[in-house]
Amino acid sequence: MSSTTRPRYQICLIGSGGVGTIASVVLTKSGLACVTTVLRSKYNYVSQHGWNIESIDHGTLHGWKPHRLVSSARDAATDENGEPIEYDYVVVCTKQLPNKSPVTDMISSVMTPGKTTVVMIQNGMGIEQEIISMWPENAVMSSVSHIGSSIKEPNVVLQIGKDVSKMGPHFHDGLDDAKSRERAKAFVQMYVAGGCSVCEPVDDIQVARWEKLLWNGTFNTVCALMRMDVGEVQRSKGRETLLVPMMWEIWRIANAAGHHMPESIVSWMAYRLPDDCSYRPSMLLDLENGRPMELEVILGNPLKTAKELGVDAPIMTTVYKFLKLEEWKIDQKI
Amino acid sequence: MSSTTRPRYQICLIGSGGVGTIASVVLTKSGLACVTTVLRSKYNYVSQHGWNIESIDHGTLHGWKPHRLVSSARDAATDENGEPIEYDYVVVCTKQLPNKSPVTDMISSVMTPGKTTVVMIQNGMGIEQEIISMWPENAVMSSVSHIGSSIKEPNVVLQIGKDVSKMGPHFHDGLDDAKSRERAKAFVQMYVAGGCSVCEPVDDIQVARWEKLLWNGTFNTVCALMRMDVGEVQRSKGRETLLVPMMWEIWRIANAAGHHMPESIVSWMAYRLPDDCSYRPSMLLDLENGRPMELEVILGNPLKTAKELGVDAPIMTTVYKFLKLEEWKIDQKI
Repeated sequence: MSSTTRPRYQICLIGSGGVGTIASVVLTKSGLACVTTVLRSKYNYVSQHGWNIESIDHGTLHGWKPHRLVSSARDAATDENGEPIEYDYVVVCTKQLPNKSPVTDMISSVMTPGKTTVVMIQNGMGIEQEIISMWPENAVMSSVSHIGSSIKEPNVVLQIGKDVSKMGPHFHDGLDDAKSRERAKAFVQMYVAGGCSVCEPVDDIQVARWEKLLWNGTFNTVCALMRMDVGEVQRSKGRETLLVPMMWEIWRIANAAGHHMPESIVSWMAYRLPDDCSYRPSMLLDLENGRPMELEVILGNPLKTAKELGVDAPIMTTVYKFLKLEEWKIDQKI
Repeated sequence: MSSTTRPRYQICLIGSGGVGTIASVVLTKSGLACVTTVLRSKYNYVSQHGWNIESIDHGTLHGWKPHRLVSSARDAATDENGEPIEYDYVVVCTKQLPNKSPVTDMISSVMTPGKTTVVMIQNGMGIEQEIISMWPENAVMSSVSHIGSSIKEPNVVLQIGKDVSKMGPHFHDGLDDAKSRERAKAFVQMYVAGGCSVCEPVDDIQVARWEKLLWNGTFNTVCALMRMDVGEVQRSKGRETLLVPMMWEIWRIANAAGHHMPESIVSWMAYRLPDDCSYRPSMLLDLENGRPMELEVILGNPLKTAKELGVDAPIMTTVYKFLKLEEWKIDQKI
């Protein structure tokens, strides 16, 4: 089957950092989609020079661009002739900062009610609910992505870790589960066709989110608060005194919420990296650079769930409160 | 009554920082004591130039010295002729670092069993037990001191806050309570005679220690961990989210241990300083300068008590664990 006979999905991808740019590459390479990527601060440079990409999954790409680059979601709403575009998928790859830049605001100009599926390639918990409330008949799905990819100024992307993603729909009352599944399945097919390293469709995407939170809620937050890399936290025994007990708090909240993870996952998550690992997680980099952190979706929302379900999470609560003080410090400097 | 008719107590004072040097001044000025002060790192400079002191309680003193300066407790054990001295009081004003420099090691050469009273002008909890175990027939007392006094290099002492002390004996089985009281009373008399601003004798010195811990266990530790001054913690609402809940943990441990403080003390402690207060507590200064912190006596020992008594203290526990990681970082640099 040649690519001209394939259906072409209209895709708008928002947020072209390390994760989003590789997602643009995968979706463009699939041959199944027409990809419009929204770039904000880097639009002028990248629209002129394209991206220079070194990727463990996709090799070396010089001056690479998706089908179309725009500088705002409003510009993405119409084509070059000013005709409105009805997108099949809006893929959100931005940082999750619900208090500062809610996703609902960000995507509203490219959403067609009843049609556009929202794909969230983002961290944290409880991030789908506002979208479902705003567009109750649209499908919403998540990709929980483990990928090592980062931007080097001005237009270089280095993907050193393979893209391993779990994808699945967020079922809700406004749409038949079958339709939610169908939209998710078509997206997974694009991802597989585009050369994603591993793309696993799952029926309970919340379990995948809680699994990732075992890492993001612990290593990410403690490394940030302590200004320590992963290996330092491990060598100082912070893993045993703080991270593992925090992981059990997360495990118990997930379990109380009906998302069961095997008990063995805690030690797997805690002990999978070597003690000389110098990785500095995203929240630590944000803190060091005075940028906003994804604190609300990584700790705030899970703690709301814990409270609703009556699960004690004293270490997470204390870490959350300390990181709120770090946020206050960042806000003083802006 | 002239000073020649007064009894002269032999006093050895160890640790001549901001607190210890003012204690040397008070005891020397009392006219009731012969004071030998042990100075370590500053011995050479101060034995030549004396101290230059600006004191809210004692005025300006140039080139001031106590009766005798020595560079080690071993040197303090004998007089200028090599004759042993039997001290009436050993006054300990050092930092409390039980794992690095135990007080029992520090004072052993100047202790006369059954005679010498140990006076601890030090922070923290559970600091008297080892001394009582080692010298079971000696009196042990504490001074819980609120004083604003600091050293400026090389030999300048600035006392900007009045010396307000509560003093009382640690009663124990090896000595009649009456004798413990008598030794404490004589020491208080010296302090009053020497011009201490306020020196209040108390019968339950443990309550005074827990009261001070309400501050030291909270502002001191949280300011250190967050690298924030007192006003910053207050303005960021860290007082409400972290300090006050921690103060209640301390209050409950003290209460369970039989040391009752009025409930009103928590808000008094939490709200007595203004929101623009730029005070940087001692533990924060230690951390910033890579020096050992008094973590074990300020949080470690109260948490042992909490565990023995079955009192939950989750915030204190988490803060303790985070500060242990800070200790690990300091140890890596030594």
